[in-house]
Amino acid sequence: MAGSSDSPRHKHKVTVVGSGNWGTTVAKLVAENTREHKDIFEEDVQMWVFEENVVVPSDSPHYDAAVGDKPQKLTSVINTHHENVKYLPKIQLPPNVVANPSLLDAVKDSSILIFNLPHEFIGNVCKQIKGHILPSARGISCIKGVTVTEDKVELISEYIGETLGIYCGALSGANIANEIANELWCETTIAYNTPPCDRRAENGAANNSAEGEHRDARGQVSKTKLTAVPDDYPPVSHAELYKLFDRPYFTVSMVSDVVGVSLAGALKNIVALACGFIEGHGWNMTAKTAVMRRGMLETIQFCQEFFPETIQEMTFWESAGWSDMIVSCTSARNWRYSKMAVERGVSLHEVERTELNGQKLQGISTTKEVMSFLKARGVQDKYPLFKAVEGIVDGDFKVEDIPVLFRQ
Amino acid sequence: MAGSSDSPRHKHKVTVVGSGNWGTTVAKLVAENTREHKDIFEEDVQMWVFEENVVVPSDSPHYDAAVGDKPQKLTSVINTHHENVKYLPKIQLPPNVVANPSLLDAVKDSSILIFNLPHEFIGNVCKQIKGHILPSARGISCIKGVTVTEDKVELISEYIGETLGIYCGALSGANIANEIANELWCETTIAYNTPPCDRRAENGAANNSAEGEHRDARGQVSKTKLTAVPDDYPPVSHAELYKLFDRPYFTVSMVSDVVGVSLAGALKNIVALACGFIEGHGWNMTAKTAVMRRGMLETIQFCQEFFPETIQEMTFWESAGWSDMIVSCTSARNWRYSKMAVERGVSLHEVERTELNGQKLQGISTTKEVMSFLKARGVQDKYPLFKAVEGIVDGDFKVEDIPVLFRQ
Ligand SMILES: NC(=O)c1ccc[n+]([C@@H]2O[C@H](COP(=O)([O-])OP(=O)(O)OC[C@H]3O[C@@H](n4cnc5c(N)ncnc54)[C@H](O)[C@@H]3O)[C@@H](O)[C@H]2O)c1
Ligand SMILES: NC(=O)c1ccc[n+]([C@@H]2O[C@H](COP(=O)([O-])OP(=O)(O)OC[C@H]3O[C@@H](n4cnc5c(N)ncnc54)[C@H](O)[C@@H]3O)[C@@H](O)[C@H]2O)c1
Repeated sequence: MAGSSDSPRHKHKVTVVGSGNWGTTVAKLVAENTREHKDIFEEDVQMWVFEENVVVPSDSPHYDAAVGDKPQKLTSVINTHHENVKYLPKIQLPPNVVANPSLLDAVKDSSILIFNLPHEFIGNVCKQIKGHILPSARGISCIKGVTVTEDKVELISEYIGETLGIYCGALSGANIANEIANELWCETTIAYNTPPCDRRAENGAANNSAEGEHRDARGQVSKTKLTAVPDDYPPVSHAELYKLFDRPYFTVSMVSDVVGVSLAGALKNIVALACGFIEGHGWNMTAKTAVMRRGMLETIQFCQEFFPETIQEMTFWESAGWSDMIVSCTSARNWRYSKMAVERGVSLHEVERTELNGQKLQGISTTKEVMSFLKARGVQDKYPLFKAVEGIVDGDFKVEDIPVLFRQ
Repeated sequence: MAGSSDSPRHKHKVTVVGSGNWGTTVAKLVAENTREHKDIFEEDVQMWVFEENVVVPSDSPHYDAAVGDKPQKLTSVINTHHENVKYLPKIQLPPNVVANPSLLDAVKDSSILIFNLPHEFIGNVCKQIKGHILPSARGISCIKGVTVTEDKVELISEYIGETLGIYCGALSGANIANEIANELWCETTIAYNTPPCDRRAENGAANNSAEGEHRDARGQVSKTKLTAVPDDYPPVSHAELYKLFDRPYFTVSMVSDVVGVSLAGALKNIVALACGFIEGHGWNMTAKTAVMRRGMLETIQFCQEFFPETIQEMTFWESAGWSDMIVSCTSARNWRYSKMAVERGVSLHEVERTELNGQKLQGISTTKEVMSFLKARGVQDKYPLFKAVEGIVDGDFKVEDIPVLFRQ
């Protein structure tokens, strides 16, 4: 039996699906780790690049007079100069990050798939690679947000897992790509609930559970039948994922609560809007922290009400919980523009129009979606802060009335 | 039996012991409430003032040409002009705040004592009033900090309670006196574990528990024998304290975990130093939130290790927990000067010398005291962040090594 030999024949091949600001940063740090853990991972990390033409500016060290202003393929610039000049300029990538313009070629034979691209593209990507990946592959989604409709809450990691028939965890935290690319220290949280069929007996060989059956993020027996990670691969469990992601400048905590990590990363956007309103109105840090903590309590309540089986309160103490909340309520877009709206005495929609070229603020759609889900269940009054944010966005509720929400 | 009549004969007389920046602010808001709840409280609120002479400046609306630059008693200025010109200038106090230079007269017959002065003065004040207060009085301490020695952790509320033979709770939160005096909204937390002898039967009359015996903040049967609040007074329980302190601009949460509230308010000073170090070193908000959450986890661990009987994890979600932590790590003295020290490449002691006229930073003494307590028990290694802060203060540990603490 292959897996019972001392050295597994296979190593994990890792692919990062996506190569924007965050995708390229994650490819960099993962590639640094695959080099350090050659016993577990193949050294080369594939990075799928949505191919486009780029012009290398003349003041770039990668400018080639012979090429001049002629557009070049982004993949070939990355593979030649080891820099993603468009999405992560001025950052040297390790040479074992291999840019690949072919999605199917990039994911072929990969046993670990890291999904990292704006969420609007994930559906299309999954459709394309379905049936073209290893059935025993495992995924990690770095995509923030969840899909909430009147009917249900769907985690992006669940969507990926169910579409591809694999297990997929989630990575989220107080993370700013450019800082991490510059190796400024921060933390992150990886939620990964190792499927039973992947749990190996102590002696390292046989799977100790029936293949296939596992529980989804809601704690229900999933319709997706999983293929176990074969015994001749190293296991994919917390220890290995830690080795793949943790860097001296990027401290990883492993948890198993995928729902908590994903929902904290999504609902914080509602709270960030509330904090912007508060500060725009002229209140200070003391008021803002009050709104943050009430927002966090509503977030936990939401998770416990709709995912009672799997939620763990300690998740909210992780980087994906409190840390991300604080950063999002202090410097991110939702906060900045909601503050601006109140300061100028205009609606958020007006700010979207004048400052964002009509582009939508994520926090507004999250608020609307979450409220429609709550209203469909008649429980919106149990979430006074979320409700107030919708009311302010719609012009039905005044910022100065926020404190009243919190009186007994 | 007096207490069984419909309207109790007595109302609570309230005294604020202390009249600095925070004491005067609390006197103002409490006096606003005693006016609104005349069924429970006497309208006049006594405020003990450590008497001193003040000169009212000529540009003050309270300047009196007839008096000129002649020093006047602070109490008489307060009682004439309803403004504490020295400690809370430009804030109109309600006329039912009565400044009293006599400590013993101010506390006489008061059934609710609010202690609010710098902690170095509390010992002397307690010694003076011991034996001169109602035996059934109840206290609330607004004084931040705890007294930690190698031998023990003593809460200020416990010290007050034991010295005076009364029960004393604690008020703490993300509170900045000047903001609250200006009626800028924030929240606070009041921890009050109603003594069993004060718990009345549903019909409002008889005490349902033996007088005297109660458990201290550690959950131990206390040596202090309490005198129950008499039946002809309104009870002193969460509902009444809420009425006494909650204002539209000052939202109160009531909890019973006095230890958690008090220790969170003290240990945050260690974390604030760490955050200053982090930012001084050039790391950003993402790194700072990592240190805050690790610091909060060590705070909880400390509370659970040494006060397992009474600690409630939810306390740290209160204003006295996370909110106060965030504010202290973003704008308070400990944070500001530790950041300055690292930016300038000098020790914190050097900053104390040059910037603070040799005055001590609270965070440094708290760190030293807590570490000596932990070392005496041989458990300092379980608190890597607290230990690192001491190491940095002493020059034995480098700021850039903080991330290493958090690796597995
Ligand atoms: N940037 C950050 O600091 C950061 C931090 C944490 C999480 N995230 C999350 O990471 C995810 C990716 O964010 P980002 O900042 O890297 O985005 P980005 O805007 O930098 O990346 C855009 C990417 O989308 C690709 N793309 C464009 N059109 C496409 C198409 N039609 N199909 C497929 N791909 C296409 C581009 O080639 C590019 O690689 C988001 O979910 C975001 O919330 C970002
Ligand atoms: N100021 C705030 O924003 C704030 C907020 C929350 C908690 N606190 C806490 O409240 C407590 C009081 O702080 P503060 O800011 O009001 O202090 P402060 O410096 O404004 O007050 C000093 C007070 O001490 C009195 N005093 C001076 N010498 C004295 C003596 N020998 N004996 C007795 N009293 C004497 C002065 O008359 C004055 O009333 C502290 O424990 C502080 O941590 C303060």
